[in-house]
Amino acid sequence: MTKTIDLIADLGEGFGKYTVADDDALLSIVSSANVACGFHAGDPRVLDRTVRACAEHGVSLGAHPGFPDLPGFGRRTIELSRHEVMTDTLYQIGALAAFARRHDVPVRHVSPHGKLGNLCVTHETYARGVLDAVLAFDQELVVVCQEGVLTAMAREHGLPVAVIGFADRNYNDDGTLVDRRHPDALVRNADLVVERAVQLATKGTVTTVSGTEIPVPCDTVLVHGDTAGSVTLARRVRAALEAAGVTIAPFHAPAGVR
Amino acid sequence: MTKTIDLIADLGEGFGKYTVADDDALLSIVSSANVACGFHAGDPRVLDRTVRACAEHGVSLGAHPGFPDLPGFGRRTIELSRHEVMTDTLYQIGALAAFARRHDVPVRHVSPHGKLGNLCVTHETYARGVLDAVLAFDQELVVVCQEGVLTAMAREHGLPVAVIGFADRNYNDDGTLVDRRHPDALVRNADLVVERAVQLATKGTVTTVSGTEIPVPCDTVLVHGDTAGSVTLARRVRAALEAAGVTIAPFHAPAGVR
Amino acid sequence: MTKTIDLIADLGEGFGKYTVADDDALLSIVSSANVACGFHAGDPRVLDRTVRACAEHGVSLGAHPGFPDLPGFGRRTIELSRHEVMTDTLYQIGALAAFARRHDVPVRHVSPHGKLGNLCVTHETYARGVLDAVLAFDQELVVVCQEGVLTAMAREHGLPVAVIGFADRNYNDDGTLVDRRHPDALVRNADLVVERAVQLATKGTVTTVSGTEIPVPCDTVLVHGDTAGSVTLARRVRAALEAAGVTIAPFHAPAGVR
Amino acid sequence: MTKTIDLIADLGEGFGKYTVADDDALLSIVSSANVACGFHAGDPRVLDRTVRACAEHGVSLGAHPGFPDLPGFGRRTIELSRHEVMTDTLYQIGALAAFARRHDVPVRHVSPHGKLGNLCVTHETYARGVLDAVLAFDQELVVVCQEGVLTAMAREHGLPVAVIGFADRNYNDDGTLVDRRHPDALVRNADLVVERAVQLATKGTVTTVSGTEIPVPCDTVLVHGDTAGSVTLARRVRAALEAAGVTIAPFHAPAGVR
Repeated sequence: MTKTIDLIADLGEGFGKYTVADDDALLSIVSSANVACGFHAGDPRVLDRTVRACAEHGVSLGAHPGFPDLPGFGRRTIELSRHEVMTDTLYQIGALAAFARRHDVPVRHVSPHGKLGNLCVTHETYARGVLDAVLAFDQELVVVCQEGVLTAMAREHGLPVAVIGFADRNYNDDGTLVDRRHPDALVRNADLVVERAVQLATKGTVTTVSGTEIPVPCDTVLVHGDTAGSVTLARRVRAALEAAGVTIAPFHAPAGVR
Repeated sequence: MTKTIDLIADLGEGFGKYTVADDDALLSIVSSANVACGFHAGDPRVLDRTVRACAEHGVSLGAHPGFPDLPGFGRRTIELSRHEVMTDTLYQIGALAAFARRHDVPVRHVSPHGKLGNLCVTHETYARGVLDAVLAFDQELVVVCQEGVLTAMAREHGLPVAVIGFADRNYNDDGTLVDRRHPDALVRNADLVVERAVQLATKGTVTTVSGTEIPVPCDTVLVHGDTAGSVTLARRVRAALEAAGVTIAPFHAPAGVR
Repeated sequence: MTKTIDLIADLGEGFGKYTVADDDALLSIVSSANVACGFHAGDPRVLDRTVRACAEHGVSLGAHPGFPDLPGFGRRTIELSRHEVMTDTLYQIGALAAFARRHDVPVRHVSPHGKLGNLCVTHETYARGVLDAVLAFDQELVVVCQEGVLTAMAREHGLPVAVIGFADRNYNDDGTLVDRRHPDALVRNADLVVERAVQLATKGTVTTVSGTEIPVPCDTVLVHGDTAGSVTLARRVRAALEAAGVTIAPFHAPAGVR
Repeated sequence: MTKTIDLIADLGEGFGKYTVADDDALLSIVSSANVACGFHAGDPRVLDRTVRACAEHGVSLGAHPGFPDLPGFGRRTIELSRHEVMTDTLYQIGALAAFARRHDVPVRHVSPHGKLGNLCVTHETYARGVLDAVLAFDQELVVVCQEGVLTAMAREHGLPVAVIGFADRNYNDDGTLVDRRHPDALVRNADLVVERAVQLATKGTVTTVSGTEIPVPCDTVLVHGDTAGSVTLARRVRAALEAAGVTIAPFHAPAGVR
C-alpha cells in the first residue's frame, strides 16, 4: 500500500521591495502552498505574483491568514475577540480569493499563520474565529492546522481537515511546538529535518525534545522557505520521501472556490 | 414618463474607534452604497457591520476601493502603475466580496474612491488599472464613475456603466470636479445641493462655477454622509427628488457576485 | 493646608480625517496633556496641531505612547519583549519631542496609553520596556502611571513619578481598573464621576466595585475627552475640585526636555 | 592639495523580519550613514540596531526621512502639501534622534530619501517642507541632497549643505537622475561605478546618458547597499578613491544634535 502525503510551503511572504524566500524554486518542489494575504506579510503585488506562480506550477492554493502585524511577521500574540479573528480572517481569505479568480485557480484550503495558527491549536477564541470565517466563506475549504481545538471544531462542522506536521520544528511532549522564543524551537540539523519528514509521513510520529516518540498523524508536512539553504533542504525532503515510497500530492480536497 | 435615479452614499468610512458618518441613518435614505474596503478607510469590523446593514436595509452593495492611504483618506494622489492600481483594487474588491458572501448579498458595482476616482476620469493608467481589476473579478459588476476615461473604456469592454453625479460638489466647465483643495470645491448651501440633485436627476445638467449649464447625464447621484447635517440634507434630497416625480432605485444591474 | 492636583486629559487621539474629542475645549480645562504619538492614534498633523495647542494654552505636555495598533486604538494586548516595548516607546517619545521643539515647549512626562499602561502596572516586561525608554531619553521626565510595577521601578531609578487616578473608571479591590471588556468598566453616571474626582483629590481613596474604600493616593486625575458630554463633565470636575478647595496645577516637574 | 570626500550609504532599510543590505559590512566602508526612520523602511528595532552600529563604527549619523509608503519603499510620488511634508519629516527626524540620544551620538545631517529626495531637487513644495522641518528641529543639521531647490533654499537660510553625488545612477543632461522606471536608471557595470565615483570626487563631473560631461560638484558620494555584490562594490569604490589620493571623511559638520 502506498503512503501519500502533501508537501506544503508558506509562500508570498515578501512585502514591497522585501523578499524572504525563493518562491519559484519552492513551487517546483511542493504540492500545496499557504499564501500570505497581506496582514503579516504579502502585498497585492506579491499576492498576484504568487498566485500566478502557483497556477503555473499546478500547486494547490491556500490562504495563509495571519495577525495584523507586519513588523512582528504575525509571530506575536495579539489578544483578539472571536469576532476580530473572524473578520480579519475573512478579509484576508476574500482578498486572496480575488487573485485566485484572476488566475483561474481554486482556493482549496485555509491555514492560519504563525502565532494565530498556534493559538488555534489551544485556544477556543482563535479557533472559533477562524472557523467562523471559513464557514462564512466556503464550507468546502480544507482547514489546515496542527491537531487541536480548530481541527476538532472543523470536523464537528463537517469541514474537511488536513493535519499539518512540521519537519523543522521541535515538538513538546503534548504535541505542541516548542515556542519560537526558545533556543530549541527549530530543528537546525538538515539530516534530522529530512529524517523527521520521513518519520512523519511514514510512521505518523515525532520524537519530541524529551526524546519521546509521540503520534502526530498528519496529512501534510510543512517545509519552510525563509532560511538559508531552505530550498536545498526542501529538495532533500522531497527526494527522501519519494525514496521511502511516499507519493507527494495535495491532500484530498473538493473542487474549491473560484 | 417617469425618471428613475439611484441615490448613493459612501459608507463604512470609519476605522477602529473612529466614525465619520451616521451610516444607519443614511441606509434608510439611499438605494445604493459605496463601501470602503480598508485602504483609505474601513477595517474588517467596519466592513462586516456595514455590509450587514446594507443587507438589512436592502441597499445595493458596491465596492469603494481607494488609494492605500489611511492618513490621507484616499484624497492624495499617489503615482501608481497600472499594475499597482489593478492589484490594489482587486485586493479590495475581494475583501469586500467575502463580507458580501457572509451576509448573503451580491456585490453589484465598483466605484473608485476619492482621488483614485478623480484620476479614473482623466488618466488612462488609473482607469485601466481599475478596469483590469473589474474584468478579472467579475464582468457583471457595474462600473460607477463620473463620465470620462474609465466609463468609456468600460463600455468598450461591454461592462455595465453607471455615471455618477455629485449634488454637493462644484463642477468646472469641462465636467470635472473643482479640486478639493480649492475653496469652492464643495456646495455648502443646502438649498443649492437639493436643487442640484433635482437638476441632475430631471434635466441631466449642472450649472458650473462659471455659471454655465453643462450636460451631466447621470444614473446615480451621490450624497455625502461625513459632514454635519448631512443626514438631514440627504433626507431633503430624497424628498425633493420624489416630489419632482423621480423614482429612487438602484441603477439597473445584473445579478451580481456572491 | 491646600491640596493640589493635576488634571490631565488624553489628547491628539484623532487620525487623518478622524477626530475623537474636542481637544480645544479640553485644553482650557486641564493642566496637563497626554499626547498620542502616532502608534495607537495621532499622526504628524494631529501631533503638530495638538502640541501647538498645548503650548498656546500653557498646558503641560507629555508623551502618550501606545501599542502599535491603530485599528485596536492601543487597547488590545500585544505580547512584546522588553526590547520591543523600549524601542516602540522611545520612537514615539522622540517623535513627540520633535514637535515640542518646534513649538518651543518642554516634554515633561511620559504616560503609557491604554493596554500598555495597564500592563505597566502589573507586568515587569512592559514596565521595564517603558522605563528603559525614559531612562534612555531623559531622566527628568516624570513617569505617569497608576501605582504598580512601573512606578516602583521608576522611583528605584530616581525618576520623578506622578500617580494617576481615574475619575470615570471603576476599580477592583486590588487597585487595578475593571477591564474595558467588562460592562462595569466605566463610571457612566456623571455625578459619580465628579464625586470620585473630588474623593481622589481630597481623600486619596476610591470606592471599588465591591463597595470597599481603598487608598489610591494620586498626583493627577484623568478626565476622558472621547465620549459624548465629556467636555461638560470635565468642566464639572474642575469646578467641583475648585469648590472643594483643591488647586489645579501640573504635578511638580523639572524643567523638561526641549 | 588633498581632496576629501564623504562616502555615504543608506542604512537601516530593513523592516521586521526583512533585511535588504549587509549594514554591518557597509559600516566598515563608509564615513556617513543615511538611516531610514520608519516611513519608507525601518522600524524601531531596526533603528536601534542601526544607530548603535553607526556609533560603534564611528560613522556619522543622519536622518533619511521618506514618504509614508512602506509598500512602495518611498519611491512613489505622493502629492503632499508643504505642511504634510514638514510634519512627516519632523516626526521622522525626532524618532531617529531619540535613538541617537540612547546611543550617545549626534544626528549630523538630514537627507531626504527616494522620491522625496528627487522632488526636493525640483519642486519647491517638497523642498520647503523638508527645510521647515530641519529649521524647526536644529539649524546645525547639514542638509544633504542633490544640487537643486532644497540646497539653494538651505543656503539662503544659513544651513550647512552637503551636495550628494550618485556613483551608480545615471544622470540626465540637466543634472537630474534618470527616473528609476527607466531601464537606464542604474549604472550596472561595476567598473563604471568605481570610475564614476573617482570622477565625482576628483573632477566634480559626471558623464550623462547622452555622453556629455557635466559639472556635479559634490561633498559626498552615495554607495547603495541593497543589491547583490553591493558590499564588494562599495569596497572597490573606497579603495579606488584612496588610490586616487582622496581622503574619505564625513563632510564638515557642526557638533550635531543629541
